[in-house]
Amino acid sequence: MHERKLPATLRFMLAARRSELLGLEDLAQTCALVARISQLVHALQKERGYSNLFLSSAAAHLRPQLDSLSATAADLEQEVRTALEQMDPNGLGAPDKTRLFTRIAHALHHLDELPGLRRRIRERLISAQDATATLIRLIGGLLAVIFEAADSAVDPDITRCLVTLFNFMQGKELAGQERALGVTGFASGYFDPQQLERLSHLQECQERSFSTFCRFASPAAAAQWQVLCASSSNLQACRLREIARSTHAGARLDPQLGELWFELHTQRIDLMQGIESHLEQELLHCCQQGMQRIRRELHSHRRVLENLSDMHNSAEQIRLFSVHSSGLDSPPEDGLSGNLARSTLDLLQHQSQRLQAMQDELRTTRQALEERKLVERAKQLLMRQQGHSESEAYAWLRQTAMNQGLRLEEVAQRLLNLATAAELQPLAGHRH
Amino acid sequence: MHERKLPATLRFMLAARRSELLGLEDLAQTCALVARISQLVHALQKERGYSNLFLSSAAAHLRPQLDSLSATAADLEQEVRTALEQMDPNGLGAPDKTRLFTRIAHALHHLDELPGLRRRIRERLISAQDATATLIRLIGGLLAVIFEAADSAVDPDITRCLVTLFNFMQGKELAGQERALGVTGFASGYFDPQQLERLSHLQECQERSFSTFCRFASPAAAAQWQVLCASSSNLQACRLREIARSTHAGARLDPQLGELWFELHTQRIDLMQGIESHLEQELLHCCQQGMQRIRRELHSHRRVLENLSDMHNSAEQIRLFSVHSSGLDSPPEDGLSGNLARSTLDLLQHQSQRLQAMQDELRTTRQALEERKLVERAKQLLMRQQGHSESEAYAWLRQTAMNQGLRLEEVAQRLLNLATAAELQPLAGHRH
Repeated sequence: MHERKLPATLRFMLAARRSELLGLEDLAQTCALVARISQLVHALQKERGYSNLFLSSAAAHLRPQLDSLSATAADLEQEVRTALEQMDPNGLGAPDKTRLFTRIAHALHHLDELPGLRRRIRERLISAQDATATLIRLIGGLLAVIFEAADSAVDPDITRCLVTLFNFMQGKELAGQERALGVTGFASGYFDPQQLERLSHLQECQERSFSTFCRFASPAAAAQWQVLCASSSNLQACRLREIARSTHAGARLDPQLGELWFELHTQRIDLMQGIESHLEQELLHCCQQGMQRIRRELHSHRRVLENLSDMHNSAEQIRLFSVHSSGLDSPPEDGLSGNLARSTLDLLQHQSQRLQAMQDELRTTRQALEERKLVERAKQLLMRQQGHSESEAYAWLRQTAMNQGLRLEEVAQRLLNLATAAELQPLAGHRH
Repeated sequence: MHERKLPATLRFMLAARRSELLGLEDLAQTCALVARISQLVHALQKERGYSNLFLSSAAAHLRPQLDSLSATAADLEQEVRTALEQMDPNGLGAPDKTRLFTRIAHALHHLDELPGLRRRIRERLISAQDATATLIRLIGGLLAVIFEAADSAVDPDITRCLVTLFNFMQGKELAGQERALGVTGFASGYFDPQQLERLSHLQECQERSFSTFCRFASPAAAAQWQVLCASSSNLQACRLREIARSTHAGARLDPQLGELWFELHTQRIDLMQGIESHLEQELLHCCQQGMQRIRRELHSHRRVLENLSDMHNSAEQIRLFSVHSSGLDSPPEDGLSGNLARSTLDLLQHQSQRLQAMQDELRTTRQALEERKLVERAKQLLMRQQGHSESEAYAWLRQTAMNQGLRLEEVAQRLLNLATAAELQPLAGHRH
């Protein structure tokens, strides 16, 4: 039956379901991109680790391994770029992608700098610290794409998968930064107070990310995380953290410990990579399942509506043949007759309730993203206005939260509100 | 210059702006529909008023006027249906419309019942109360479409216009319900306690709606509202409210006062209609301005990016001609050179900040919708679970808020949280 023949009510009910399917198909494409980005991030983290090692020592024997890691990352970058080409941003049908596309442009901008950075690393024209900082920014830009994908996803299950993956990747990225910082510290034989503060900041933020991950993780992923936590490389890596913390200018270490640190933290991060792959698979699986479910529902929905419409048409036929019966006997001359109207209404109410439940679930999950964004923005504000370093800004927020018996997010929110009020002040004055 | 030749970074920057434009064009279409729905609602309110009058009295002379009002409403309904046809829900490019389309299907379902209802009214086969209740549901369904349009709009200015219009229409609808209730009360010579409770509920909710309207209204709309409040028909209508409040079974009124009540409240509502038209115009104007602004920005953005790209290409040309210069002299072999990279980054950061500011503004405005939704849902819950009437449910919420020193929305939120927790309880038990 051609859909145009369906009454407008039923047509819009179908259109609503189809819109849901379109949204999910679109989301599935974004998730496929996210999975590729996740792999690229892992490759870049490995490359960063070796670049750091390469620049920190004069060890020329690291070069072949570094080249191989760069080649892997470059291949994965090409895959991401191909996937981006396929997203066809120039095509129609892409409203509401403004934030996602802006993040992608940002990430691409940083990726454009990669070949130049690699050349400078090999020619030792850049310090380990600067190279690391550049790669941290680059990876941060890629993570921001995943954050935005999570923040704009409309399906609660997929949003949950994306929030889980994002938080895990964030934790793993902080683990990578911790590894890099450790390499620098051990190479010089001790950690100065600033390095120690940064080290504990990285560890604390890691814990925060992984605890959010655990809150949303599937039982399977959570179990894998437990295995990692109990692994000997993790336990030994933690022991080396203790050793690092006990150093100072007067208590130096054998720089050789740096290689052990690197080795153990690399093992730890490689275990994380296993979980990350699992999360990518869960995400893609969730998209597939969601689309299958909606396609099935759309199919049965269409049949129900067509049946309703057939009943409606035959009711009209009957009415045509009973022009002589009294007005009181015949069904109302319009709309769907009683039973049909009721079935339609039932379907509509069921759909509305389902949508409301989805909205509620979505809000709960997005809350975790919203809170992260608040803390990030409050940190930026403190860094910009008070000249704090990132770890100082975070420490200030944490201390204030403890003093005032508030959650970190609440302190961040209040700080941002104050800043907004302060910005609006001159405007308000101007109006008088 | 063909866009394909732009570097991917710049292409996504453009795509982000174009996505914004597409989203706005789509929103403008929804707003055009909203304006038509607003006019239909007004016509239906008038028709409801006269239907009520027609059914409450034996006055046959009201029939021609009623027929003419029905014809006007039917014409406007046809315009809404035509606009809906043009929305082409079967076409592609409509993800994320699930909620809007579901609301539209709901509204259409109620509209389908209209001709039957009109017949029953003319044949006096339905009571004034039932006819009014049916039309209240129908208008409620149409208002829900506007609510959903406001809740899914992505532009803060347009969202503000939609929130303003929605709240004003809601207030006007409650004014219409108050008028209908008054007609019934005056016709029987007095208001029983239940009617009095409902009357004060309608007045209180009206005030709430208009106060939200005032919070978001433009200075011009707010000024019109002040004029209405000071108008003699409004002041006299308020005086009749006092009189209604003082009646009981032992203190009856001249039923003729009902016609004055109807007349004054009709004048009051007609004045509201003037403001409503103004709000529709503001909404459409806001859409036009937004699209013009983005088209202009997109145009200049494209030129800036093309210039950047030209500079990039000529930098490459220079590099081609200087293959013999040392590696140290030449710019990095990749990405955009220093200046270009900086301009690109500036543009990107500007765009990100703008999007963040828009998000913040959007959140503030949507808060008003979110709060209304919370109160609505809490009321529904109390009506379903405690068997309260709507005004009893509202009174309970208000009283609880006063007792606990909380805002109405906070009480609603806590109540809904409790209900969710209670629903989850059996599930949690089941898992053990």
